[in-house]
Amino acid sequence: MFTLPDLLKPNEHSTGILYLDLYEYIKSQIISHELTFNEKLPSKRNLAASLGVSIKTVENAYSQLLIEGYIHSVEKKGYFVSNLEHYPRQKENIKQEFKTRFQQTQYYVNLRSNRNAPEDFPASLWCRIMRETLSEHQEELFDTIPFNGLAELRVAIADHLRKFRGMEVSPDCIIIGSGTEYMYGRLKQVFPAESIAALPNPCSKRLRELFDNHRFMYETIDMNLDTSEPHLRIDQLEEKNCSILHISPAHQYPIGKVMTIQERLKLLEWLNNKENRYIIEDDYDSEYVLSGHPVPPLYSIDVNDRIIYMNTFSKSVTPSLRISYMILPELLMQKYMDTMSFYSCSVSSFEQYALAKYIQRGHLERFIHRVNRKNAIVRTKLLESLKSLENSGKLQIATQCVGSMLLLVLNTDMPDRKIKEILKEKSIITSMMSEYYADPSVLKEHIIVVNYSGMNEEQIKYLCSVLDSII
Amino acid sequence: MFTLPDLLKPNEHSTGILYLDLYEYIKSQIISHELTFNEKLPSKRNLAASLGVSIKTVENAYSQLLIEGYIHSVEKKGYFVSNLEHYPRQKENIKQEFKTRFQQTQYYVNLRSNRNAPEDFPASLWCRIMRETLSEHQEELFDTIPFNGLAELRVAIADHLRKFRGMEVSPDCIIIGSGTEYMYGRLKQVFPAESIAALPNPCSKRLRELFDNHRFMYETIDMNLDTSEPHLRIDQLEEKNCSILHISPAHQYPIGKVMTIQERLKLLEWLNNKENRYIIEDDYDSEYVLSGHPVPPLYSIDVNDRIIYMNTFSKSVTPSLRISYMILPELLMQKYMDTMSFYSCSVSSFEQYALAKYIQRGHLERFIHRVNRKNAIVRTKLLESLKSLENSGKLQIATQCVGSMLLLVLNTDMPDRKIKEILKEKSIITSMMSEYYADPSVLKEHIIVVNYSGMNEEQIKYLCSVLDSII
Repeated sequence: MFTLPDLLKPNEHSTGILYLDLYEYIKSQIISHELTFNEKLPSKRNLAASLGVSIKTVENAYSQLLIEGYIHSVEKKGYFVSNLEHYPRQKENIKQEFKTRFQQTQYYVNLRSNRNAPEDFPASLWCRIMRETLSEHQEELFDTIPFNGLAELRVAIADHLRKFRGMEVSPDCIIIGSGTEYMYGRLKQVFPAESIAALPNPCSKRLRELFDNHRFMYETIDMNLDTSEPHLRIDQLEEKNCSILHISPAHQYPIGKVMTIQERLKLLEWLNNKENRYIIEDDYDSEYVLSGHPVPPLYSIDVNDRIIYMNTFSKSVTPSLRISYMILPELLMQKYMDTMSFYSCSVSSFEQYALAKYIQRGHLERFIHRVNRKNAIVRTKLLESLKSLENSGKLQIATQCVGSMLLLVLNTDMPDRKIKEILKEKSIITSMMSEYYADPSVLKEHIIVVNYSGMNEEQIKYLCSVLDSII
Repeated sequence: MFTLPDLLKPNEHSTGILYLDLYEYIKSQIISHELTFNEKLPSKRNLAASLGVSIKTVENAYSQLLIEGYIHSVEKKGYFVSNLEHYPRQKENIKQEFKTRFQQTQYYVNLRSNRNAPEDFPASLWCRIMRETLSEHQEELFDTIPFNGLAELRVAIADHLRKFRGMEVSPDCIIIGSGTEYMYGRLKQVFPAESIAALPNPCSKRLRELFDNHRFMYETIDMNLDTSEPHLRIDQLEEKNCSILHISPAHQYPIGKVMTIQERLKLLEWLNNKENRYIIEDDYDSEYVLSGHPVPPLYSIDVNDRIIYMNTFSKSVTPSLRISYMILPELLMQKYMDTMSFYSCSVSSFEQYALAKYIQRGHLERFIHRVNRKNAIVRTKLLESLKSLENSGKLQIATQCVGSMLLLVLNTDMPDRKIKEILKEKSIITSMMSEYYADPSVLKEHIIVVNYSGMNEEQIKYLCSVLDSII
């Protein structure tokens, strides 16, 4: 039966808007079955008079109930309660203390990440460029972005690649996206569904997880490390029927090795031997070399347009900037346009404008050089400190690695799990070489992969003293 | 044979750095086979003397050639040219005029997009908030972001949903991502691989393309429009063995219909009838109502935690801002964490901070109200103008639609393809109802879907006069 609500008495549920309060009141009466199916509601005029509100208020409440189906109207007869069975019982108030359950543990020494130290990022410079972008591009910020990213940024990237990587790239073949991980999702879709990819073994665990998550079929291809010239077992590519190879010729992680020109030529031979073969060249980290010159990418010597080139800016501006890009061969770009140009670009225009300025003005290059100089100093100090451990026979240092990493072969029988555990207790987080293998075996144990980017002297001393004490 | 380079004479290929010029010179000699396999290079000292450069310069050039494998060293004998067969011929200079081949055609009247007019976006307000963010959060901008987004933004979203959508949500179950399209890619990965999704028929073509692209198996479920209560054929969900339903109960596009409480309860019944069933509730556009109050989401009456809620901010701040979010049921969130928390958050922290401020200060609500008021005026004017066409029997207006859209049923025999073509010639871009069907048939023809958000009076007049002239 309809009972008048106490509308004028504000209560904790009150919205402060009369018609909404009335709507909520009647709705709750229907849900709780105090108003039953086909029961007639008071006329708008009567209800308004009884409540001392305007007819408009009642009208608004009824019309909201009508839209949502709680009531229905019968011409010339008025409004009636609709049928409402099985309305679920109200959820308990699940409002809860905001847990920060996803917080990551912080370690004093992090040998896993080759991230630069926070203070190395050009914070105030980047903020200045963002401010400038706000003043200069205020209007454009509200325009729609082309699916493959702002022309300004793509041109800046093409120029950068021409000058510093020896690559001739049309800005039209560049696709901007929010992070490399995002790119793989797109990339999978331009390949035939049944394509089998090849990942080097060992390689980053994250890469395998990414391929797993995208349900990207893949095989692992062994790196032959026993010869004087460690190399990828290209023969396995044929054997395992792979048509796409994912590789970082400038720095195959975690081996830390540069692919020689001979091996590159063999890869190109495989690539051109059959239709529909592609190489995904992840050039991440390629500019971070401690001495000499970055090695030219495979992309620059491919003449058949079969290489997908990928890179990211997270390491070179700020880790919280999610901008990556990939360069597609003409054929794949065509397919991308046909099937995926309806996707919006996943990076906001503001940060694309800012990044374009950052690159054009040479800040990217200067940043890379600064970090490289700094890492060279860290490397020297680290090697000095490790030397005495090597001299006392506790470990061997493998320094063939390019980039800001090296490998430590520990002279111990402890299983890797145990080594990690002990180091973790001492607030040192690390990865062991064995973890990078798809098929971990004891034969690959006892090797720590040391990413030393951003380490300071204190941390180096601490690491060495801990290593000294546990071996 | 080794011939001395003209190092001191700068040429167009010169890098300006001596050792790099020397490295490039020797490399090109090896590639062109002027230096042949196993040929000995001059000693560093001799070459330095001949060229009048420091030994260090030669050393750097040789060491770069060594790393890349163009030369090798033999102890106590010196440096030798390595084997280099099949070096590909150099690519022609493909540097080309930057084509803008992906530019979209602009139309005078765009009835396809329900985007607000550019001038309606709060440009200067948004820029002010971005400036503030730069001053206040400069340091935090360089921190790593949790995989599911900044806590600040997730808390702001949870508060907004509590106040304005009647939803109780823990910020821990919210995942921030760069656009709704991105979200589907992730979402697919938390469901079992063999899950079959259900898409309403008709629905947005983009949605079907998105599911196709992600290789997300789906069936289409008919909307029954023939009864007085148009509804989704829930019986087909069982029949077609679907376990996931994608739906927008607040505004099923392009029908433009609000789902009644009766239909919602039936959906929940289906949902709870069997394990592992889920509903993806895309609540896009739900707050854009022309009169009355936004309809509460299905999420708010689900007690079994089986609904994935999705929404985006592109329409409410600027289209160039790529921030969406989804709310996962506890069970799926657990799976997401187990398998995908290694993914980085795909939105940069800067814009997350700015958006959190924008929401917290009530700008989002104010913007929505402003746009709704404006659209109500456009609707009135549009209906007025169309009235005379309806009176002369040229079309019927279907106004049951919520949101800023309506349907025009043209009194014509022209096929839809022809109608679109004629309108396009007159610079009016539109979609016909038939295009939204997975199985277009002539029975569904002659209905124009009019999205009028952002239209001005001139455009309304023009549209009506064109319609008048072609029917």
